[in-house]
Amino acid sequence: MRYSPLLTDLYELTMLAGYLEEGKTESRAVFDLYFRTNPFEGGYAVFAGLETALKFLEELCFSEEDLEYVAGLCLFKPRFIDFLREFRFRGRVTAPAEGSVVFANEPLLTVEGTLAEAQFVETALLNIINFQTLTATKAARVCHAAAGAEVVEFGLRRAQGPDGGLSASRAACVGGCRGTSNVMAGKLFGLPVRGTQAHSWVQAFPDELTAFRAYAGSFPDSTILLVDTYDTLKRGVPNAITVARELREHGHELGGIRIDSGDLAYLSREARRMLDEAGFSGVRIVVSNDLDEYVIESVRSEGGMADVYGVGTRLATCAGFGGGALGGVYKLVEIDGEPKLKVTGDISKTTLPGRKKLIRIVEPGGGFIQDVVCLDNEVIGGGDTVYDPVNPLRHTTLPADILLVEFRDVVMENGRSTFNGESLEIMAERCQRELKNLPSGCLRLINPHRYKVSISHSLNSLRGELIERIEKGVS
Amino acid sequence: MRYSPLLTDLYELTMLAGYLEEGKTESRAVFDLYFRTNPFEGGYAVFAGLETALKFLEELCFSEEDLEYVAGLCLFKPRFIDFLREFRFRGRVTAPAEGSVVFANEPLLTVEGTLAEAQFVETALLNIINFQTLTATKAARVCHAAAGAEVVEFGLRRAQGPDGGLSASRAACVGGCRGTSNVMAGKLFGLPVRGTQAHSWVQAFPDELTAFRAYAGSFPDSTILLVDTYDTLKRGVPNAITVARELREHGHELGGIRIDSGDLAYLSREARRMLDEAGFSGVRIVVSNDLDEYVIESVRSEGGMADVYGVGTRLATCAGFGGGALGGVYKLVEIDGEPKLKVTGDISKTTLPGRKKLIRIVEPGGGFIQDVVCLDNEVIGGGDTVYDPVNPLRHTTLPADILLVEFRDVVMENGRSTFNGESLEIMAERCQRELKNLPSGCLRLINPHRYKVSISHSLNSLRGELIERIEKGVS
Repeated sequence: MRYSPLLTDLYELTMLAGYLEEGKTESRAVFDLYFRTNPFEGGYAVFAGLETALKFLEELCFSEEDLEYVAGLCLFKPRFIDFLREFRFRGRVTAPAEGSVVFANEPLLTVEGTLAEAQFVETALLNIINFQTLTATKAARVCHAAAGAEVVEFGLRRAQGPDGGLSASRAACVGGCRGTSNVMAGKLFGLPVRGTQAHSWVQAFPDELTAFRAYAGSFPDSTILLVDTYDTLKRGVPNAITVARELREHGHELGGIRIDSGDLAYLSREARRMLDEAGFSGVRIVVSNDLDEYVIESVRSEGGMADVYGVGTRLATCAGFGGGALGGVYKLVEIDGEPKLKVTGDISKTTLPGRKKLIRIVEPGGGFIQDVVCLDNEVIGGGDTVYDPVNPLRHTTLPADILLVEFRDVVMENGRSTFNGESLEIMAERCQRELKNLPSGCLRLINPHRYKVSISHSLNSLRGELIERIEKGVS
Repeated sequence: MRYSPLLTDLYELTMLAGYLEEGKTESRAVFDLYFRTNPFEGGYAVFAGLETALKFLEELCFSEEDLEYVAGLCLFKPRFIDFLREFRFRGRVTAPAEGSVVFANEPLLTVEGTLAEAQFVETALLNIINFQTLTATKAARVCHAAAGAEVVEFGLRRAQGPDGGLSASRAACVGGCRGTSNVMAGKLFGLPVRGTQAHSWVQAFPDELTAFRAYAGSFPDSTILLVDTYDTLKRGVPNAITVARELREHGHELGGIRIDSGDLAYLSREARRMLDEAGFSGVRIVVSNDLDEYVIESVRSEGGMADVYGVGTRLATCAGFGGGALGGVYKLVEIDGEPKLKVTGDISKTTLPGRKKLIRIVEPGGGFIQDVVCLDNEVIGGGDTVYDPVNPLRHTTLPADILLVEFRDVVMENGRSTFNGESLEIMAERCQRELKNLPSGCLRLINPHRYKVSISHSLNSLRGELIERIEKGVS
């Protein structure tokens, strides 16, 4: 899981070489990493990937082999190769904690440093934060739909490459999944690993009952039987009940059954009834087969009785609105103390200039009211007017009785992480706690309530000024 | 890019342990890897990932650290850990060459070996082949839409993890892309790397013209200028023309301009006109911004004048119908010489039993007529009746004047690749050649012609027999 410094777009290298020629590598720059619309047309996102990102920044260093390859491209002068040999990231990073609930247009990572170092890390930071944040968000949606039933991530076989699987397993657990089928992810991230068996196991024996007995013989205390190879209700569940009885005679209990095809609501209900009637109310029902938050919601609303949802492809590849990608961007907001802005015809793509902080407005009871993006040196409070960033005509006044929580911290200083690290469990707990503090309409899967992210009066004014200056041709 | 043997689903390990207990690890098994519907609702797929898969199989070996982790799960007996220590893949693999055009329900990889080895490699093979085949297919679609203009893959920053980016870059070039922005992919796979500059480059200078001059000064023979930071036609293109003149005065030529926002058809047309009028008809126009095959087709149909399409997110994440995943499966088709079948209520999910071969029926002129899946020992020819695999009532007779091409080869024997390797260029050429031999309606992006994949009379009969046996309860 070491990120090579070559895992970047070529233009990061050519720009670096250009800055070196221009004597600009040591300019002081500030970049913001953020996304412009919440993923999945949902009401929020779950921030993830920070630990991976910090590790990348700490270890950033070109090997001689890397340098040889770059030199061989015949694009660069020897002086630039020497520059790369000494190149490290020694900047500062500000970010929320992983598992935090975040929203469109909020600066997530802010990276400050020399223009060279802060620019160069763009591609890798986007690669890491975009995908992990997207997966954590998808997992939170799936777990919300499961309404307390366990969700286990089963996506490796259809993930986008091996690391698509690994990053997905990690981030899915930040978002609320309780385990993964991916053994490597279990090892790397200390996640619980889970599994049942494949249809090929059942087919490899003369009949289903023999196959079930064989598996239970090998794993008497952790057997989950796949019951849909031939006929779920006529054969699979009765055979599982037979094995459950035999296990019990020897002092063991069958762990569960898994249903992987057919009408999951109906089959899980019937299976539950058959198991309960046979005295096996402790046997858990696992369902799988192209699940996502919408399918789970519909299985539940039709009275499905699953204890565990095994969610694979559509979780690991973040299927849904947005096409499997979070559109995170990384924009220059300040250089040598001068705030910078990129304008476009579309105001939603105009950047927020300057060094900024991110404030969450919280009710005394803990509920989140809205977020406000302010300038770094600004103080705001109840009674202040704040603005809609994409519609400056809309503004609101902050209520009086509020708490203001600055929810990002400096997590790296001089290229060293200032952050002690925390377990995925703690991140997952943070995520669950913050989701509970959101207005509940934000959790709705379709047409959620839009949580308000405003910009402060000073930031709004600064942006207005800079737009005017650019329009006058003075950038 | 070494695949750890732990990059697998837990159930592969538990099944292996179960087979060891049952004395079944040495049974002879045959598995087929295939998918059930063409990706993107398209007319074909482009097979990719074989080289990566063979490397995984050749190197498969548990390290002591891996074994320690597996033992620590407290699921397995010491005897199983000893078994894993000696575990290697020593089987046979049959597959098409990479870049081959393939279709739903065709066995792609066939893996033969002991039940233990052939089962265990399921997850990794699916992970590799699913994603690379999906990306190569997406790339072929995008390149088809570009109709001869160059397509360069720019997707790393929004790919699904670092390897999502690497695998995508490799497979995209099999499918027809001519380069990538991903430097690491360039190094690993010998691909041409390409890039321009970011908006932050332009913003880091007092004005756009200064920024353009600085870049051209550093890269006088390979400059592509990003012209949309402030105003594409009013400022960006005129400034680029100024720099093109200055370069020419010093004996260099501007390489190109890039347009990354706005109405790409209109802006590229106008930019072309302005460049041509200024005497720079050699300056190429690169367009980018959330492109895919549909957007490119529409830009072209509106008279867009792009020479190069930079395609990022939607290529690297395979956005579109199917949600970013190819639904490849890996099914047991024979054990100890006995053909095996998995039935379900849905005939399209019923497997094709037995060891099989894959025949392409070709016109004397080279055009592809249809594919036929046969039993391994079977001989078919003109005049034979073949059957629709999902609708056995539909059958056709093969014409007389045909060539029969068996287009898979044994690529691994006794766990060693028997295949010398070939360059990505050769794979890409194969892909382009085979696409030309398809009925042209198969290339249509929407509602394509369905290329026929039939099953032979003997295979159809065998399947019918086995279904009957299972229905009678004798599996």
